[in-house]
Amino acid sequence: MEDFIVGIDLGGTNFRLAAVNLEGTVGDRMHCPVESARGKEAVLGDLVSSIQALAKNQRSTRGNMLAVGLGAPGLIRSEEGIVAESPNLPGWIDFDIRTPVEAALGIPLAIENDANCFALGEFWLGAAQGIRDFCALTLGTGVGGGIILNGEIWRGADGMAGEVGHMIIETDGRPCKCGSHGCLEQYASATAIRRFALEALESHGKTLLRDLRKNAEELTAQDVFEAAKKRDELALEIFRKMGHFLGIGLTNLINLLNVDRIVLGGKVSGAWEFFIHETERTVTERAFKIPARRAKIVKSLLGDNGGILGAAYLALKKIGRVQ
Amino acid sequence: MEDFIVGIDLGGTNFRLAAVNLEGTVGDRMHCPVESARGKEAVLGDLVSSIQALAKNQRSTRGNMLAVGLGAPGLIRSEEGIVAESPNLPGWIDFDIRTPVEAALGIPLAIENDANCFALGEFWLGAAQGIRDFCALTLGTGVGGGIILNGEIWRGADGMAGEVGHMIIETDGRPCKCGSHGCLEQYASATAIRRFALEALESHGKTLLRDLRKNAEELTAQDVFEAAKKRDELALEIFRKMGHFLGIGLTNLINLLNVDRIVLGGKVSGAWEFFIHETERTVTERAFKIPARRAKIVKSLLGDNGGILGAAYLALKKIGRVQ
Repeated sequence: MEDFIVGIDLGGTNFRLAAVNLEGTVGDRMHCPVESARGKEAVLGDLVSSIQALAKNQRSTRGNMLAVGLGAPGLIRSEEGIVAESPNLPGWIDFDIRTPVEAALGIPLAIENDANCFALGEFWLGAAQGIRDFCALTLGTGVGGGIILNGEIWRGADGMAGEVGHMIIETDGRPCKCGSHGCLEQYASATAIRRFALEALESHGKTLLRDLRKNAEELTAQDVFEAAKKRDELALEIFRKMGHFLGIGLTNLINLLNVDRIVLGGKVSGAWEFFIHETERTVTERAFKIPARRAKIVKSLLGDNGGILGAAYLALKKIGRVQ
Repeated sequence: MEDFIVGIDLGGTNFRLAAVNLEGTVGDRMHCPVESARGKEAVLGDLVSSIQALAKNQRSTRGNMLAVGLGAPGLIRSEEGIVAESPNLPGWIDFDIRTPVEAALGIPLAIENDANCFALGEFWLGAAQGIRDFCALTLGTGVGGGIILNGEIWRGADGMAGEVGHMIIETDGRPCKCGSHGCLEQYASATAIRRFALEALESHGKTLLRDLRKNAEELTAQDVFEAAKKRDELALEIFRKMGHFLGIGLTNLINLLNVDRIVLGGKVSGAWEFFIHETERTVTERAFKIPARRAKIVKSLLGDNGGILGAAYLALKKIGRVQ
């Protein structure tokens, strides 16, 4: 018999869930679409039935499902168990998740912002084990962030702290979807890599990226990554550029918070070898020496599992099974 | 009989000290030059004899000097009682302040970075009373910063956190004396105001600043302030510009930390009416709405006393006379 938690990573287009035992081993998994068009109550219903299906499978091992942990994008009021606002889940405004889920399942639910879950996952079992003060960034379509201080998520007064992706590094820089300009997210994400590529293609000569003969709209950050692996000079230059801007963002975190570590995850972190040298060079050049030497910049160890494990960790905390 | 603390604000060119009673009322004061040329041991000797002189005066009220609190610029290792490094106190490298001062006076010494002292002063008796999560900025020649979280200074792993003035807001911006570029300090300090004025004078037509007929080297931020009070359009424009950049820096603090309040002090905060509107406008435009509404931006209440009171507060904490 092995008791378990269900950890969930809810995104704008799909949700992933997994059974996680008390030591953090990931068992059965599921992957489902978020059918937003059917309305948020329907999505919540899908979540609950997926959890039940997963638990049913898992019960063949005769363990009990103890709690559910859910990471969701946007502004989460974790103490109240509600999604206050979420750009990726339109219409989820002050939407109570906890009450219906707990009523349907009869076990506690913990809910938290997804980037914070990622940070907690790395703290529990990943690249920040034993590190009580660190920042974790997810480099994906956007740039998410979680700040852990004294071993706890720093949520701020409204639970909105940690928006590392919306730190302004160019006062009059690129417009950002948040309404501001020059946010880190516009310079250190998959979106930025794609934009750098499109901008460079206009002026650049020979490059594998042109050989793809794609329409501009079809070019992706993944194409740039593939070209970089083939040592295409333009693609390599784009990753160096992104790495430099990322280093500016990390410099600010280091000078402000003097943290012990910075964990980088998300899809773009897969291109580690192509940007990290430039990131480290920039931090060394631009941040104060002592805190720059302190803050080790490391790659996420948990990959896609980070969010699920962090959510599971929060659920374990909620039921008093971890400190 | 009234017991007291001596609070000290040590700068690069002079130090100020004052007797402070347990409620934070400031009594006798002294103001002395820092004679760096005589060496750091001599400066320390001057500090000790000034404290003794102040205590002697104060003893006419028959109270006891209970402890000393010292705020100093640079990197302070407060637990060890040493100045690790200080750009404004050349040669003070890993310099133990506590041992000789405690030996000479026979009472405990608390030492902390000056911007952190300023923040603590405002927390104890100023514009952040009862506010447990806030940032405090001193807008002077440079921009100093203190971050208070859960009612405590956030020091970071090396005691170097809170370097708000060295947050990069323009990736390839103005060179900063810290070795980086585009630091907030280069856009929101007295130094920045003076530079904006010099830059604008070259292109601008009629302005009171030109009428001063000073050499460029002689123009000061104070001149710009005086001209602004006389509604000189160029001077007003310069303060709006500085206010805008300050708003960018505050946006980053708000998006990262979701603090309850931001306290602005230092000499430049005296020009409050000339920049704050632009600062608030920028924060409203650029930061996330919910945390921007939360973070009240307020002017320091303690002025020049902030650092001394914060140092005294730390000393009181050290001897267990405040929580």
